[in-house]
Amino acid sequence: MLVAKTIKELQDFLKKEKSVGKKISFVPTMGALHQGHLSLFKRATEVGQISVASIFVNKTQFNDPKDYEKYPRQLETDLNLLKNIGVSCIFAPADEEIFPKNSSGFKISPTNFTECLCGAARPGHFEGVALILSKFFNIVKPDVAIFGEKDFQQLLIIKNLVRDLNFDVQILGHEILREKSGLAMSSRNQNLSDASKIKAAEIYQTLLAIKKNPESLSFQAEKLLKSGFEKIDYLEIRDEKNLNLISNFSCENPTRIFIAVYLDGLRLIDNIPL
Amino acid sequence: MLVAKTIKELQDFLKKEKSVGKKISFVPTMGALHQGHLSLFKRATEVGQISVASIFVNKTQFNDPKDYEKYPRQLETDLNLLKNIGVSCIFAPADEEIFPKNSSGFKISPTNFTECLCGAARPGHFEGVALILSKFFNIVKPDVAIFGEKDFQQLLIIKNLVRDLNFDVQILGHEILREKSGLAMSSRNQNLSDASKIKAAEIYQTLLAIKKNPESLSFQAEKLLKSGFEKIDYLEIRDEKNLNLISNFSCENPTRIFIAVYLDGLRLIDNIPL
Repeated sequence: MLVAKTIKELQDFLKKEKSVGKKISFVPTMGALHQGHLSLFKRATEVGQISVASIFVNKTQFNDPKDYEKYPRQLETDLNLLKNIGVSCIFAPADEEIFPKNSSGFKISPTNFTECLCGAARPGHFEGVALILSKFFNIVKPDVAIFGEKDFQQLLIIKNLVRDLNFDVQILGHEILREKSGLAMSSRNQNLSDASKIKAAEIYQTLLAIKKNPESLSFQAEKLLKSGFEKIDYLEIRDEKNLNLISNFSCENPTRIFIAVYLDGLRLIDNIPL
Repeated sequence: MLVAKTIKELQDFLKKEKSVGKKISFVPTMGALHQGHLSLFKRATEVGQISVASIFVNKTQFNDPKDYEKYPRQLETDLNLLKNIGVSCIFAPADEEIFPKNSSGFKISPTNFTECLCGAARPGHFEGVALILSKFFNIVKPDVAIFGEKDFQQLLIIKNLVRDLNFDVQILGHEILREKSGLAMSSRNQNLSDASKIKAAEIYQTLLAIKKNPESLSFQAEKLLKSGFEKIDYLEIRDEKNLNLISNFSCENPTRIFIAVYLDGLRLIDNIPL
């Protein structure tokens, strides 16, 4: 497993593999790896002959500087976790390698699908995601890239980014991995106290309850707040394809329940198909 | 010479050539080809083993819809001109091939070097240029792309686009080709009357006069207006690297005289090093 710190190291390695026609798969991450990531990496080793994982905390996608500071960073632990997964190469560049001081500054702005959910709650977030992925797609030039469905809106926007800007990469979504409690795995979970980790399991229970009875949505939202969640950014049912809000549950398109809540000052998101 | 109308046709052709390691050069154009373009194509055949020229009038870079409508389109003539140049492939897609109706709409915005010159005079122009080139770079995946220095600000912004978004393509600037009269070659010149073509030669004469005596700039501007040019968007001396306005002619960086003027309702641009 090569650990490349620079674009040149990574590209020198990939050039050789590409020249003999090997299929490259790619999983971009911000590190603080958990089983959810590992399942993405495993998929990457299955769909690509050469698999690349990036570990890079992308400051441009944080709308809240405190969230950026608090975001867990643990490269050594991450690399140890990765040892036996079979990933060919880890790309773990320093901040200046990706955003050099003399950057002139280009913005890549999605103009659709950003008015709701995390787009509404986190201004600039998806611009930062589009920027870093455009850069990484150009650096890695993968044939396939894999993203978790926990960030479902992100996945939709990435699919559109790839189509609209003609990136020659196939985007695969990968199912959400959950703790035994049902809590969706997330790097941010590390910052939850043990008590909050138990409480956080209510998020998934809430989604399941709404799946059973969509009409109970408002009741379930109130219940969460009473139970100690500090704030609900959103708890909504939306069309999977266009993210339109669903009020009529006889909608023919696939729909999904989306949630973002605050617990212990941490923002946690989840979603399940209705 | 292959004429590819679809992305798939083009990519099928290029895939074969790339798989045997051939170097791809690329010249994007909006057609209405003149000797200036042909000199770019010739350069492309010299620096690349496979050379691609695109002919596509990119609506997103026109701030003025009338300018877009009036822009000369002459694919058959262009293809005839190209026959003996040695270009390997012409990519001449229809509008819907590049901007399909279901596009979700991404904007790529340069945040630097756009406040002056054509950036100030043509709001949104460089966004459109950045968008189409990002798409074309992803479609063609050239090793080298060649651009004329007539659009000097564009060339600077493209170099920054490539660096900032990590496109793996080398950008070459190519000197301006001129008519015998000194008029910089341009597709828009087609729309000039014979009398205006003669008058338009004064643009280059003005630049030469300012090169000789930079202090005469305001005088030269007035002279152009008196002589029948309808409007001057700009006539300025700027730093080549950062486009800062130069008032002190002992500036150590290379500097350049930039001009955009209207004649016969057409906007003509030119520049020369000071």
